[in-house]
Amino acid sequence: MRVLGVDPGLTRCGVGVVEGVAGRPLTMLGVGVVRTPVDAELGHRLVAIEQGLEAWLDEYRPEYVAVERVFSQHNVRTVMGTAQASAVATLCAARRGIPVALHTPSEVKAAVTGSGRAEKAQVGGMVTRLLRLSAPPRPADAADALALAICHIWRAPAQNRLQQAAALHASKGRTT
Amino acid sequence: MRVLGVDPGLTRCGVGVVEGVAGRPLTMLGVGVVRTPVDAELGHRLVAIEQGLEAWLDEYRPEYVAVERVFSQHNVRTVMGTAQASAVATLCAARRGIPVALHTPSEVKAAVTGSGRAEKAQVGGMVTRLLRLSAPPRPADAADALALAICHIWRAPAQNRLQQAAALHASKGRTT
Repeated sequence: MRVLGVDPGLTRCGVGVVEGVAGRPLTMLGVGVVRTPVDAELGHRLVAIEQGLEAWLDEYRPEYVAVERVFSQHNVRTVMGTAQASAVATLCAARRGIPVALHTPSEVKAAVTGSGRAEKAQVGGMVTRLLRLSAPPRPADAADALALAICHIWRAPAQNRLQQAAALHASKGRTT
Repeated sequence: MRVLGVDPGLTRCGVGVVEGVAGRPLTMLGVGVVRTPVDAELGHRLVAIEQGLEAWLDEYRPEYVAVERVFSQHNVRTVMGTAQASAVATLCAARRGIPVALHTPSEVKAAVTGSGRAEKAQVGGMVTRLLRLSAPPRPADAADALALAICHIWRAPAQNRLQQAAALHASKGRTT
């Protein structure tokens, strides 16, 4: 399973590609950041993010895209930018027919460190270890994107089983 | 000046095209709503909004796109959807090199009714009158999109003067 993780943001959009299956060692295929200038117009920033993500999708052809689920309890301005960058990532993937999975920050932290309230450094440390890297990926957005991809690979089997169970339940409901 | 107004939303994205200049009677060229099913996946909804807006841009070739500026003091879920739909509208326009202007709901209300706290019905009534329509456009999202376009046509000269003044000031600053 090849997953592109996206940590959405207008200024720094973290991207990371991980390949593997749950229960086996994982491989990092690529990691980076799509940046846009803070003083550019919103439209130009969104176009730059679209072009950057399209290049990643072209190069790595992931089977899934995992995007951080945006919450609005945080800083108002940041959340708007995050929601807009996340919309572009979701749009780029959906246009190609690639399924998009959303994971919350605490799901990602819990998946890679065992604690939903882990610190940034701990997440970076575990990502480095799980992907057998020589140093934690910088900036943190890049490490977070890899953590999202890892989280998706590990959670996907459970999510698929739930979806299958729900589908089975629905089909049984229809025949009775 | 031909302006496409967009009242962004995931379920109903209002669109309206108005042509004219400040101080002269305005003409409505088109009005409608891009709808997406509430139970569809986010990615599919964003793709449907993109395709819908592209069709409007293709048909009317506006010189400006006016989008409602999103605030996050409202309902959390709605705001996320609005921010995401607004990102798609901004992206579609910017990709074509069409300038995108953002106006707040109170700027729009003040422009068409004289009061920033006017009711929906009052906005619909003034839009009907200003565009010499036989009845208020339905749903309200469609009327709001027309109000945005009207607001942009009326505010644009002032905004342009401000931008010219700022540019002049900046160029003077450089030469001294």
